[in-house]
Amino acid sequence: MNQRLDAFSSWLQHHDDSFAFITSSANVFYLSGFFCDPHERLLALLVFPDSEPALVCPQMEVPRARRSGFGYTVIGYDDSTDPWEEIGRHLEARGAKPGLIAIEKNHLSFARFERLSALFPNAKWHDAEEKLRQLRLIKDEQEMKVLRQAAKLADKAIEIGVSAIRPGVTELELVALIEYELKKLGVEGMSFPTTVLTGAKSADPHGVPGTAAVAPGDFVLFDLGVIVDGYCSDITRTVVCQTASDEQRLIYDTVRRAQQAAIDACRPQTAMGEIDRAARNVIEQAGYGDYFTHRVGHGLGIEIHEYPSLHGANNEPLAPGMVFTIEPGIYVPSIGGVRIEDDVAVTDHGVEVLTSFSKELIIV
Amino acid sequence: MNQRLDAFSSWLQHHDDSFAFITSSANVFYLSGFFCDPHERLLALLVFPDSEPALVCPQMEVPRARRSGFGYTVIGYDDSTDPWEEIGRHLEARGAKPGLIAIEKNHLSFARFERLSALFPNAKWHDAEEKLRQLRLIKDEQEMKVLRQAAKLADKAIEIGVSAIRPGVTELELVALIEYELKKLGVEGMSFPTTVLTGAKSADPHGVPGTAAVAPGDFVLFDLGVIVDGYCSDITRTVVCQTASDEQRLIYDTVRRAQQAAIDACRPQTAMGEIDRAARNVIEQAGYGDYFTHRVGHGLGIEIHEYPSLHGANNEPLAPGMVFTIEPGIYVPSIGGVRIEDDVAVTDHGVEVLTSFSKELIIV
Repeated sequence: MNQRLDAFSSWLQHHDDSFAFITSSANVFYLSGFFCDPHERLLALLVFPDSEPALVCPQMEVPRARRSGFGYTVIGYDDSTDPWEEIGRHLEARGAKPGLIAIEKNHLSFARFERLSALFPNAKWHDAEEKLRQLRLIKDEQEMKVLRQAAKLADKAIEIGVSAIRPGVTELELVALIEYELKKLGVEGMSFPTTVLTGAKSADPHGVPGTAAVAPGDFVLFDLGVIVDGYCSDITRTVVCQTASDEQRLIYDTVRRAQQAAIDACRPQTAMGEIDRAARNVIEQAGYGDYFTHRVGHGLGIEIHEYPSLHGANNEPLAPGMVFTIEPGIYVPSIGGVRIEDDVAVTDHGVEVLTSFSKELIIV
Repeated sequence: MNQRLDAFSSWLQHHDDSFAFITSSANVFYLSGFFCDPHERLLALLVFPDSEPALVCPQMEVPRARRSGFGYTVIGYDDSTDPWEEIGRHLEARGAKPGLIAIEKNHLSFARFERLSALFPNAKWHDAEEKLRQLRLIKDEQEMKVLRQAAKLADKAIEIGVSAIRPGVTELELVALIEYELKKLGVEGMSFPTTVLTGAKSADPHGVPGTAAVAPGDFVLFDLGVIVDGYCSDITRTVVCQTASDEQRLIYDTVRRAQQAAIDACRPQTAMGEIDRAARNVIEQAGYGDYFTHRVGHGLGIEIHEYPSLHGANNEPLAPGMVFTIEPGIYVPSIGGVRIEDDVAVTDHGVEVLTSFSKELIIV
């Protein structure tokens, strides 16, 4: 079995779990190498403490599952078969005993829990989500390779967007152009809906792009990411159209120094909360503390938000292989917002910054 | 309360449910008028058999919830508050008794079920999904208005795509162009990933657009939809690049007659299976029966796939206000595939076809 399955199986063994029933696309992909969005249909990876795993998926996905390199039992079912009967037979043939069953408590639906309960009426339920988050927290060399590619394409996307700024262009036109050019480059998808916000709208961290047009003097904020081989990047850059006021320059410079301070603070063993404080101190000293209203960053990988969470109260230490964003911001309702975000990976002695688009103040 | 909430409350009353705990974005939107994708956070609509509903959502969504027109209690919570404690207090204050609780069994997670169980340890669980599907099955005049707008924009999208066909253009370039032009028109989102498939790839009903280039003699298949005010459209058109062979013409003509036969069969009281058979008969008589490998259509509305399902074994009768797709296809691996799909609404005496892009064979 691969190293990920080995580690998860050992954990099941340690906890005396009978087996794990994993149903989220992200964790099935992480453990098996097979990505599948089955919509309302059932996708499940059965992992055992002391024997090979088995995958359950719609029949039409079986060829793709085999091509993905998953070399164990694949149980396909079509729309006229009840996958739960197949699962019951398979588990019985393998001699799986009731006892403790590991599930993803936030992912498994009540309806599926009822079906699983019917197969094992006396089972107890054990949450596997925290363990899987911990496993996914440290990226291996293959994952780093893909994350670097995703970061490079995010840089490219910012370049495309910034080059297209001119007075009168709308937020949605910039979004459309970025996604158009990336699709032409063969990008398979965006990590999340591409965000471009202009003027005062840039001060809303949850703003949605619309038909607002860029005007001279506006901050224009880009927040976007791409998916490469199932892994996400996430970048934010903020530029100014034509002329920047003194306060805009001050805000930009403050965010930039805050972001650099947070990057400089990253090394193994440093508490995550320290990274948040490194950025926050710079912003507070400049008098904008009340306008930095979110945590400094979040983990990324198969999902755009995963472990770790870099907020001030998190005392866990950084470790090599962790990948996360560093994205302080200052949002002043009347002026607009500036956020600068990079993806970084903790190394043995410091940090590798994966995104590399310029952070100088750009006036277009 | 609005008519939808009234109908759902009556159902709760009839089944002697204590209350309903509704958590899917689609059903919360349907009942409350408030659309929210809360990601991992909790969104819940509490509906009672004999009193006003209450909405639970993240604090930052509260202003949007109020603006949406939901005129009842809104319980906001921030990241430092446990929403389940708020819910417990609210339910206690309202005197909600354990007994039967209506939930969406396929949507409620095991973790949330555990929290709800902790508040009501002796509760029994009642599935509300089927009832909500039935309520959403018949569209009202406001829904029809929005569905018509969404269909018109789908027509526009096909027009954009067809106009851009030329030898050498890739599937992804066509996808990118369509989405770019729609975004410029202010379209808020696509119903599902836009599909453009060329040549033999058009024969794969699950094909994914890539860097394949259109060549003379190719079928080019477009399958796409847009979202307007939370409602989806879905259209498919297939055209030919430059020259069509006799067999391509025969396949196209067969699908077109099959699709028209299915449309002509739509009227109140007709069994849904009849619609599927009307199309299938035409395709079988032409000798292509083995190449029409899916049901003739599916309901659409807030979700791109909802009730009803128009497959041969479904004997339920059509009724005025049902909205669904009619989309027969013939997929011949060596030649390519043709699918023609319209959105239709059952009226008192027949059917209204919402999408209207030409179904003549277009040779670009």
